[in-house]
Amino acid sequence: MISETQGRVRLPDGVRDHLPGEAAELHDIRRTLLQTLDGRGYQRVMTPSIEYLDVILRGTDLSEDRIFKLVEPETGQVIALRPDITPQIARMAATALRDSPAPLRLCYYGAVFRLQPRHSGGRCEVYQVGAECMGVPGATGDAEALSLLAELLGAAGFDDFTLDLGHAAFLREALTRGFPEAGARAAAEAALGRKDLAGLGELAQAATPARMKPLIEALPGLYGDLAATTDRARGLTQRPELLTALDELDALGEATAGNGFGGKLSVDLGEVRGLHYHSGIVFQAFVSGPGRPLAGGGRYDGLTARYGRPLPATGFALDLGAVMEARCRRS
Amino acid sequence: MISETQGRVRLPDGVRDHLPGEAAELHDIRRTLLQTLDGRGYQRVMTPSIEYLDVILRGTDLSEDRIFKLVEPETGQVIALRPDITPQIARMAATALRDSPAPLRLCYYGAVFRLQPRHSGGRCEVYQVGAECMGVPGATGDAEALSLLAELLGAAGFDDFTLDLGHAAFLREALTRGFPEAGARAAAEAALGRKDLAGLGELAQAATPARMKPLIEALPGLYGDLAATTDRARGLTQRPELLTALDELDALGEATAGNGFGGKLSVDLGEVRGLHYHSGIVFQAFVSGPGRPLAGGGRYDGLTARYGRPLPATGFALDLGAVMEARCRRS
Repeated sequence: MISETQGRVRLPDGVRDHLPGEAAELHDIRRTLLQTLDGRGYQRVMTPSIEYLDVILRGTDLSEDRIFKLVEPETGQVIALRPDITPQIARMAATALRDSPAPLRLCYYGAVFRLQPRHSGGRCEVYQVGAECMGVPGATGDAEALSLLAELLGAAGFDDFTLDLGHAAFLREALTRGFPEAGARAAAEAALGRKDLAGLGELAQAATPARMKPLIEALPGLYGDLAATTDRARGLTQRPELLTALDELDALGEATAGNGFGGKLSVDLGEVRGLHYHSGIVFQAFVSGPGRPLAGGGRYDGLTARYGRPLPATGFALDLGAVMEARCRRS
Repeated sequence: MISETQGRVRLPDGVRDHLPGEAAELHDIRRTLLQTLDGRGYQRVMTPSIEYLDVILRGTDLSEDRIFKLVEPETGQVIALRPDITPQIARMAATALRDSPAPLRLCYYGAVFRLQPRHSGGRCEVYQVGAECMGVPGATGDAEALSLLAELLGAAGFDDFTLDLGHAAFLREALTRGFPEAGARAAAEAALGRKDLAGLGELAQAATPARMKPLIEALPGLYGDLAATTDRARGLTQRPELLTALDELDALGEATAGNGFGGKLSVDLGEVRGLHYHSGIVFQAFVSGPGRPLAGGGRYDGLTARYGRPLPATGFALDLGAVMEARCRRS
């Protein structure tokens, strides 16, 4: 029987306690991940949980209605709970660490905060361990990130993961050329995100220039084996920007061929990702069975420049809650 | 030269980044402390950074103007950034862990958030490692807490600390009896907090019953060696509640006599502490030189009952920023 007193002790939707057994396991996973990062020369940094909203918004295109905000009493300025740590590290690389020579290899542990629709099951406080490699361009940097992520997943007990690749610039360019009008483009992106092939086809019928039609209509099916998928895509377009993106994916395939996780790579050129600061190859890690990605990341060559220091960069974050859930499902 | 762009990238007053060297040191200290707690049978728990304000306020008497608050968009309810983790652990002990037999020994790492006046140098985000021992009453529990804190300070590299004791119930009782009128009592407490002896004396002249005058006037000077101070206080009062508090202090002195840190204890019966949920012996740890306390805590026998499960309890938190600062001063 729950007393009236206890009945009023409730937590906001989307946050929770971690009781002894679970908290210890989460702590152990975090320690293992951070030790592995340490062994790879990634230096720990810490950033504050709160920042001014305008500084946060400079580094994210996350919708404002997903950001926890409050007004600073003495100044009236709006403070946000950080929804993402990568832009904070980019800020740090461009300001406090501006005299540190690149490459910078930095890692962190921390919580990010995102408002979720009530009763959606979404989590408002997500614990992350992440790594950022700044100053190493192209396939070399991308291969380092993927190799590091594969090692971290192995250290966390997962050998059967898959790494799903996408390319932010490829998709952005395809949609921009395929849907010159902004409204149709947004609708097409939404349809693609829902894997709504009929909806995408209808939009393409009305809005897509003839020379882009073959690619746009094929986009939802452009997934699978890396080399085979980029080959199919090459037969559908001659735009230099798109071919460059496909070359980058092939170069990454070659750079990681000897790394022991070549067979775990797949690509989905129609995959829509949430973070608009990504500029090149993006990726998510999954294990078999239903569930959220255990990790996600990608290249963000333009992000540090928003804070004053242009650096090619890539990085990723592991979602410790998703990692715990996946371990729980298999035990 | 700072560009116009960089100039706008600033952090809110009271929060900061931790760059590689410092973040690694903070991480190492945290790991050392948590390993020590693990070795002592304290189980890790984690609590959310945000909670409903009314649930937070049930466990703290911290002034509301020190609490970061925001409105939950879909419900209109007020959410707070936790200003203190101890009430969250008390809530957990009384609800999710209500069927776990006492004693409960729990520990945590996390940040707490407290609004500070601008440019005060106060920190709005404080990283803590803390321990709570619930279900062990009196001197046995208090001695365990002090002994554990001494061990943690040693593990963090401090052998020359002092542990300053006070007694929340002694001071509350003395002020309640010494200043029966609430306004005078608040003024007296403030004067005592400022060590304003003249102010306290004037207030006592006007408001204090004759039989309480010797104790009230002596209060600011009732500090020093534990046994000598409780002896002096016994000569100034015959109220049973006050004598019981003095007995508790003496019992703690005896319980810790063989623990190797007996010489590090001192007492200040006029010390005003910030957390009003404390019900018995309270303490703070200092190292020589100026600076904030490295840790603080005390007995809070009434707190878990506010969430539905009465348990005698004591605990403390180390302030990792203060620990880092103290290490920096001596290196």
